[in-house]
This record gives sequence, structure tokens and C-alpha cells, in this order.
Amino acid sequence: MTLFSERLYQSSRPIWERSHRHPFLTELRDGTLSPDRFIYYLKQDYVYLIDYAKLFALASVKSPDLETMHKFAELYHSTLHVEMELHRQYAERFGVPRAELERTKPAPTTIAYTKYMLDIATNGSLAQVVAALLPCMWSYREIGVTLAAIPGALEHPLFSEWILMYSSDEFGQLTDWCIDQINRLADGLPERELARLEEHFLTTSRLEYLFWDMAYRLEEWPV
Amino acid sequence: MTLFSERLYQSSRPIWERSHRHPFLTELRDGTLSPDRFIYYLKQDYVYLIDYAKLFALASVKSPDLETMHKFAELYHSTLHVEMELHRQYAERFGVPRAELERTKPAPTTIAYTKYMLDIATNGSLAQVVAALLPCMWSYREIGVTLAAIPGALEHPLFSEWILMYSSDEFGQLTDWCIDQINRLADGLPERELARLEEHFLTTSRLEYLFWDMAYRLEEWPV
Amino acid sequence: MTLFSERLYQSSRPIWERSHRHPFLTELRDGTLSPDRFIYYLKQDYVYLIDYAKLFALASVKSPDLETMHKFAELYHSTLHVEMELHRQYAERFGVPRAELERTKPAPTTIAYTKYMLDIATNGSLAQVVAALLPCMWSYREIGVTLAAIPGALEHPLFSEWILMYSSDEFGQLTDWCIDQINRLADGLPERELARLEEHFLTTSRLEYLFWDMAYRLEEWPV
Amino acid sequence: MTLFSERLYQSSRPIWERSHRHPFLTELRDGTLSPDRFIYYLKQDYVYLIDYAKLFALASVKSPDLETMHKFAELYHSTLHVEMELHRQYAERFGVPRAELERTKPAPTTIAYTKYMLDIATNGSLAQVVAALLPCMWSYREIGVTLAAIPGALEHPLFSEWILMYSSDEFGQLTDWCIDQINRLADGLPERELARLEEHFLTTSRLEYLFWDMAYRLEEWPV
Repeated sequence: MTLFSERLYQSSRPIWERSHRHPFLTELRDGTLSPDRFIYYLKQDYVYLIDYAKLFALASVKSPDLETMHKFAELYHSTLHVEMELHRQYAERFGVPRAELERTKPAPTTIAYTKYMLDIATNGSLAQVVAALLPCMWSYREIGVTLAAIPGALEHPLFSEWILMYSSDEFGQLTDWCIDQINRLADGLPERELARLEEHFLTTSRLEYLFWDMAYRLEEWPV
Repeated sequence: MTLFSERLYQSSRPIWERSHRHPFLTELRDGTLSPDRFIYYLKQDYVYLIDYAKLFALASVKSPDLETMHKFAELYHSTLHVEMELHRQYAERFGVPRAELERTKPAPTTIAYTKYMLDIATNGSLAQVVAALLPCMWSYREIGVTLAAIPGALEHPLFSEWILMYSSDEFGQLTDWCIDQINRLADGLPERELARLEEHFLTTSRLEYLFWDMAYRLEEWPV
Repeated sequence: MTLFSERLYQSSRPIWERSHRHPFLTELRDGTLSPDRFIYYLKQDYVYLIDYAKLFALASVKSPDLETMHKFAELYHSTLHVEMELHRQYAERFGVPRAELERTKPAPTTIAYTKYMLDIATNGSLAQVVAALLPCMWSYREIGVTLAAIPGALEHPLFSEWILMYSSDEFGQLTDWCIDQINRLADGLPERELARLEEHFLTTSRLEYLFWDMAYRLEEWPV
Repeated sequence: MTLFSERLYQSSRPIWERSHRHPFLTELRDGTLSPDRFIYYLKQDYVYLIDYAKLFALASVKSPDLETMHKFAELYHSTLHVEMELHRQYAERFGVPRAELERTKPAPTTIAYTKYMLDIATNGSLAQVVAALLPCMWSYREIGVTLAAIPGALEHPLFSEWILMYSSDEFGQLTDWCIDQINRLADGLPERELARLEEHFLTTSRLEYLFWDMAYRLEEWPV
């Protein structure tokens, strides 16, 4: 029997490949991405992570057993302290003070992405939360590993830490654990539920693309 | 003492005036708005209203007394049955079957707007929900009344029902009741809470502008 | 194939039969129930219904389609306006002013019952909410129909309206609709989910028994 | 100006003093509490703590700034890992396997207490969550410190670790931090909000008394 994660992987391929070929990522890879775009990304991703971390807290609260509860609590902790710390260090290096990072006003696309997931986390099942949050983790791991394999990528003066984090074994293991969860939670569910999980996965895959695009376009509020 | 609604009204003026001058509304007024833009709007607004109605249900659940609970329940009912019925009738007239209306996929801007409000409705206070949902009602009433005052507006073959609904006494009274609520709920709150309410009101005022703009641009998902 | 509601019905039989034989109900049937016990019940049930109604509002918000959303909204309305109105009329007849009814402080058992269901309604799936709220409706219908069949029951000066409401066709149809929902929602779910639904159904069946018992004991807070 | 925590402390005194004089605690102090009562308490408190921990996760999600978010996340972690670990060790010493501890079925009073707080945590403000969860922490600290001051208390073969934990500086600091929070969050709120916070605090103070009483009575489900 095919794992449900395999179904998600296959159906989201066209969207993920569009992300991988987006100029934000190809220029990041080539080291030609302009610092203002990277700083814009860092700031929006920082406020994104505040809401993204909450998904793990809410998943922990919805967990059916203590072991799962503990693991999501660990993901909550690592998002707040490991991943957000990377952004704080980057911001410092780019001369962006922590206070500025924290008072970043989310752009419309950031709002669409994070609030879509939070709505699922409060109103949906645990399986639905995991389906919605997975494209971010999983595609970052895929991007991290792909970039890290390019000769010289880890010597890049600016982007090497970013690549190192998302290609790290530790991040990979957390991602694998979440993939295992979706397979476990989806096991035996009727097709109407699987279709809903897939829809959430595809929608956040699309929002992930929009997020890269937002950063590249330096999206602003028109009013 | 100035009512809190007056503070909200003043601080959102520049944003609302940008909405009122948006080509979607000036062309609606002049009768030159293209039907595909109006149909796009109807379809997105239909899925918007499904989530918007939920705000009233959640506000009802959060109400501190039975009378307030009843009134928000009434607003829930009227959104589901009166306002959405208008859209169903319009859709029929434009040849859009009800099934098509209902399976409309929300555009990114619709998601940003509705999920931002739903996040507040589940995680915030009753005052915060009302602050977030008010710009939609209040600005529609303002637009409805303004358009209805233009000679001949109510004879427009296509847009007269839309104008009639949002300029109606009934809709105006529901709006006034919500404005009264925000004044009642904000009364005596410390400035840090008032500032948060104002921030929600301004953000949804901006999202309201983006919604008109989305319809005019016939926004599509790029992937 | 056996309907899931049949499984619920069978496994809860021993608990329901304990309820049916509880002195509160046998004395209600015989017309010997003391007014203070009935008044205590009315007051606690009134604050119970405020939270119980919210379950329908939250179920409506979680509904996967407009038709289901509308139906739960109707149940929300009828609980707030029809069922609670019966209590207000009874209270008036027993000399309990509406204000006193509304400021009733919930007893510990009322809190256990309503907050258990509200926790499921906010954190669980739609199927779980329906499983949790069903024993109240379904057992009242069963009690109503059983009492109504007893010669002379509907002539009882005090309890006839109570019996009339819960044996009415209208109440019966709402109950049947909820039973249909649990069958529809449970269809095809894996055993681990069905077991969870059954656990909720059995727990609220037990809490239903405790509620009758609380009223008979005129439960008070010890501190 | 009097701190709000002082108001809470004063108004809850009569209830807390009833708890402190409850036979469960006087017998625990004297070393005469029967092991079956302590084991019953441990098991119910274990399932209580699973829900109590969730309050910190939900408080973290509702926090207005990162620093508060981090601190509640730390309390979530310490409840899951430090406090629940103490219970696991005790259970082992009393010959209760971890699996038995975890599948403890909550008694009606445990349900009333935890679900009352969870309802506030999902539907209320951050101030309301903190007001509701505070009596448990604060009264445990008070009991721990009082018991630890009794000559010989810390040499008790069975209850010394329990007393050590709740009289520890670490636990005291977490409690003080929560007391600081309620003062900070209540600052400047209108009386109608303060009255609601006080009501939550008094209700959970009462439920705290009922919890000790439940353990002493070895409360069972009648059906």
C-alpha cells in the first residue's frame, strides 16, 4: 500500500517545482539574491514563525497520547528557540535590530498563509493541522538538502547558515517525524477525509510559493 | 467623551476613502463595471460570507449575557439566509449555478481577510471580534447609502438590488447595533486594549480595500 | 451493516436504564416529585442549556457544507428560543423570576457536564461534538415518548408541558436528524475514531445520569 | 494602590482555609493519610496535569509578546516533564505502573475542574486563563511551604518529595511569575472585567477544595 505522504508528495510536485525554480531561490543558490530581498524575507519569516510555532503548541494540545504531546511540545520549543534564533542572528548581521524584527507588520500574503493554518489548528483535527503545516517543513528540508549538495554552497558568506540549518540532520529528523505522523493519522481514514487533508496540503504548498514570491516582490500594503 | 467608534472612524478615513474611490466601486456606481468583475466579486464574496457568518456564531458563543447572545445569533441567521440569498439570486441572474457558487475556491486575498478575522474570533476577546468584523458592515452601509443617494442608482438594471440591500434600514440597524456593541465593550478598557482593537479595525479596513482590488484584478492563484 | 447509532444505543443501555429508573424521573412520572427538586432542575437546566446551545453554534461553524451549517444554526436557534422559553414559562409558574433563572450559579455536576462537551466542541471534530451532545437529546426524547404513553401523563397539572415538548414530533425530528448525522459522520471511520466517539457518548450518558441525581440531591457547593 | 492579586487572595481566604483544614491535607501532614487515598490522588492528579499543562500551551499561544510566550512555553514544559515526572516516580514507588497511571479515567470532579479551565483557555482572554489556573499553583505553594516548615516534615518516608517540590524555590518562582502576570494583565481593566477574573479565581478555588475532597472520598462514577 502506498503511504499517504507519497500521495501528498506526488500531487504537490508541480507546485513545489515552481517554488524551487523561483528566482528568490535560484538567486539565493547563486549568491546573487539582493540583501534587501533577503532582509524582507527574514523579517516576514520571523513573524510567520511566531504563528507557525503556535501550530505545534495547538497540535500538542490536540494530541491523543502523552508521547505525541511531548514531541509537538519539543517542536514548539525548537521553533521558538532554534529556528527563530537563526533569524535573530541573521538580522543582527544585516544590521536589523531585534526590536525591528519583532515589530514587523505581516504582509497580506504572510497573513493569508499563517491565518489559514491557524484556522485549521483551532477548528480542524490533528491530522488536518499536520497536513497544513507539513509543506513548509518538508519543502525547506528539500531545498536545504538540494542547496547543500551544490559545490561551494556552504562557503557562501551569507547564506551558508541558512542552508546548514535546513539541511541539518536534526531538522531532517523533525521533518521525518512529522511525515510519519501524517501517515499514522491518515491510516484508515475514509477518502472524504484524505481528500480534505490533501486539499490543505496543496493549499499551503501554494501559499509557500506565494511567500517566496512575496519576498521577491517586496510586497507592501497598498493602503 | 468621544465614543470609541468615532476614534475608529477617524483613524480609518484615509483607507476607506481609497476604497470608495476604487474603480470597482466607481464603475459599479456608473454602471460600467464589467459583468466578469461583478461575477468574480459575487463568487468570492459568497465564500467570504460563509466565514464571515461564522464570526457572528463565535461572537454569540463568547457573549457575556443572553440578550447579546441572541442578537449575534440573529446576525448569524441573517448573514446565512438574507445576505447570502441575495448573492444566490444575483448568481442565477448572471447564469452562475448555485453549485458553482458554492464550490468557489477562495483567492489568496479572500483567505487573508477571512482567516485573519477567524483567528481573532477564536483566540481574541468579544471586543476584538467585533472590532475586526465591523469595517465590512460599516463600510458597506456607507457605500450603500452613498450610492442610493445618486439619482437613478436604484433603477440600475443590475446593481440596484445590491445597493438596495446595503442602503436598507434593516441593514443599517444591524450595523448600528454592532457599532453600539464596540462602544459598550470598549468602555473603560485601558489604552493597550483600545490600541489592539484599533489595530484590528485598521487591518480589516485595509483587507476590505484589498478585496475590492482583488475583484477588479480578477486575482488568480499563480500556481 | 449495523448503523453506528445502533452500537451507541446498545453500549449505553445499562447507563440509560439507570437514568430511567432514577427517583427524579419515576417521581416526575408519578406526579410526586417535590417542587423544590423540579425548580432546582429547571434552574440548573437553564444554565446548562446556555452552554448546550453553544455546542450547536460550534457544530455549525465546523460543518463541512452549507446545508449542515444551516441545520445546526436552526438547532442553535430552537434551543435558545423554544427550549429555553419552556423553562422561562415554567419558572414563572413556579414563581421564579427570569432574572433569578439567569443568574443561577452552575453546580459542580452541571459544570462537569457542560464544560466536558464544550472542550470537545472546541478541540474535537464535528463527529465528536455530535457524539457528545447526542445522549441529552436522544434520552430526553426516549423519556418524553415513554412518559407521554402513560395514561393521564399529559393531564398532569405541572409536568405535562415538559412531557409534551420532549415527546413532540418536532423534537423527535431534530433528534432523528442528529442521529442521522452521527451515522453519516462515523461512516468509514477507523475503529480508533469510532472508539473515541463511543467513549464521548458513554461519558455524557453517565453525566446525564449524574445530572438527574444532582437535581434530586439538590447538590450544593460545599464551600 | 492594592495589587489585584491581593484582592484575589483576600476574597478566596475562606475557601483556601477550608482546603488547608481538609482531612486529606491534615492527614498528609501528620503522615496518617492512607496510601489508597494518596494513590487515588496521584492518579487523578496525573490526568488533571495533562489538561492543566494545556492551559500553559494555550496561554502561550494567546500571549501578546514573545517574552510572555516563551515563559508560558517553559511552564508547559516543566508541567509535562518535572511535575508529571514526580507523579510517575511516586506511582512506581507505590507499585502503580506508568501505563495504569496514564489510562486513569478522570472522576466527575476532575472533569469539572479541568474542563472549566480549558473552556476559559479556549474562549476567554489571557487574563482569564491566568486567573483560572492560579489557585492551583498558588495554593500548592502555600501548602508546600506550610508543610515544609513543620519539624520533621521533610523526613517523612512517603510525602517528603511531594512537600519538597511544592515548597521549592523553583516552584515558588514560577508561581510568583504567574501572580505578576495577573497583576500586569488586570492593570487598568474596568470593574466588570475584574469581577469576571475574580469569579474564575473563586470558582477554581472551590474546585481545588472539591479535588482534595474527591480524593479523600475516593470518588467513583455511580454508573
